[in-house]
Amino acid sequence: MAVLEYDGTDYNGFQIQEEGTNTIQGKLGEVLSKVLNKKVDFRYAGRTDAGVHARYQVISFKTDSNLDTHRFLWSVNSLLPDDIVIKKIEKVSPDFDARRSAALREYSYFVVNKNYHSVFLKKYSILIAKELDIRSMRKAAGMFIGVRDFGSFCSPSCLKSDTVRKVFRFTVEKNREDMIIFKIAANSFLYNMVRIVVGTVLEIGSGNRDLKSISEALAGRNRKMAGKILPSKGLFLTGVDYRK
Amino acid sequence: MAVLEYDGTDYNGFQIQEEGTNTIQGKLGEVLSKVLNKKVDFRYAGRTDAGVHARYQVISFKTDSNLDTHRFLWSVNSLLPDDIVIKKIEKVSPDFDARRSAALREYSYFVVNKNYHSVFLKKYSILIAKELDIRSMRKAAGMFIGVRDFGSFCSPSCLKSDTVRKVFRFTVEKNREDMIIFKIAANSFLYNMVRIVVGTVLEIGSGNRDLKSISEALAGRNRKMAGKILPSKGLFLTGVDYRK
Repeated sequence: MAVLEYDGTDYNGFQIQEEGTNTIQGKLGEVLSKVLNKKVDFRYAGRTDAGVHARYQVISFKTDSNLDTHRFLWSVNSLLPDDIVIKKIEKVSPDFDARRSAALREYSYFVVNKNYHSVFLKKYSILIAKELDIRSMRKAAGMFIGVRDFGSFCSPSCLKSDTVRKVFRFTVEKNREDMIIFKIAANSFLYNMVRIVVGTVLEIGSGNRDLKSISEALAGRNRKMAGKILPSKGLFLTGVDYRK
Repeated sequence: MAVLEYDGTDYNGFQIQEEGTNTIQGKLGEVLSKVLNKKVDFRYAGRTDAGVHARYQVISFKTDSNLDTHRFLWSVNSLLPDDIVIKKIEKVSPDFDARRSAALREYSYFVVNKNYHSVFLKKYSILIAKELDIRSMRKAAGMFIGVRDFGSFCSPSCLKSDTVRKVFRFTVEKNREDMIIFKIAANSFLYNMVRIVVGTVLEIGSGNRDLKSISEALAGRNRKMAGKILPSKGLFLTGVDYRK
């Protein structure tokens, strides 16, 4: 298995789509196949959308080559573009599957809450100048923890399938640089779920929504009952956990 | 006075040079003059070189306009390009001069010391895969503290003028992400001084130079006695102090 990091700004998401679109999976598959001299199919933990970044994405693949993992990491990184890098590579048992073995995924969303946007964070966060109420956002976040139906908090197409997910943690922290960091960990996520859930919590924080509306949205399975979807640039896949 | 931040990647440094070059001073002057409806000459604390960034640059200018500083900040930021931002603006006494009143400048240099370079840090740090000895680098850094002649540690052209500077602090820290941060504070700096001083200290850390050679270089006033100059992308102006 390998852990990777990427800046999703210039990609149409992780997963390969039609011919000619620029995806992380496509780029990575090309390079792995080149280094291993053979087409490589790999599994991955999180299908990040267009423009979403990753600090910690996990992939797995099988190979007959007797890899020197240290040299392999250098070879792959020397061929990858500047916005994708492999951080770590490890041999694992043959039944390890980066997607199916994953028990938990963590996403983080970054919001700069002051009157200017740091030039170094513009590509990786959104700016909200109005002061946000951290305490009410923490209350709102707490309402999503547990086994919940996220039918209101996903792209409407997701209503065709099971929309129940288990949220393990959902924290809201503000650091010394006035960056608000939303961290949400669940067994898995629906399409656009984090960007809609955090968008809804931000509406609580700016006083444009009350907590009761969240209970209603969690019961309603109706996209219109939830808040606005946030831009993808503030979203990062930041963790995957394989412990039971 | 105003505090600003910029990503220096696409600029030919702070100071206006020949016609047609892209400089922070040029860009900022344009925007300030537009907002104040009058050509603005401003002073600045640090003349950062091409490709050098700033988290904390200070400028000062005089104006007859009775500025609403809050609105002024918004107007200027809405006209500045994505890689320059004003963080703060304050009215100060008429004899304040961002350059002459500054008692201390602090620069920071960032080195990632592991076997891959984070995609989010590539533009703002250099990568050194070989393990560096922090303790010996701290010893080396200590040798620069005090009133020293930096004649060996600047572009040879600087030898024509006074090369004595007072270094107040020079620290070497490694954070949890294997980023080594060099912070050096002095009354002022010579051309290329930080990049050559930190380059020399890194040669100590990698075992390619001994401490005695630093004493010799500090006495020698000879560029060849110091280490290699580092790339500008890892360098930030991170502080200016106006306290006595």
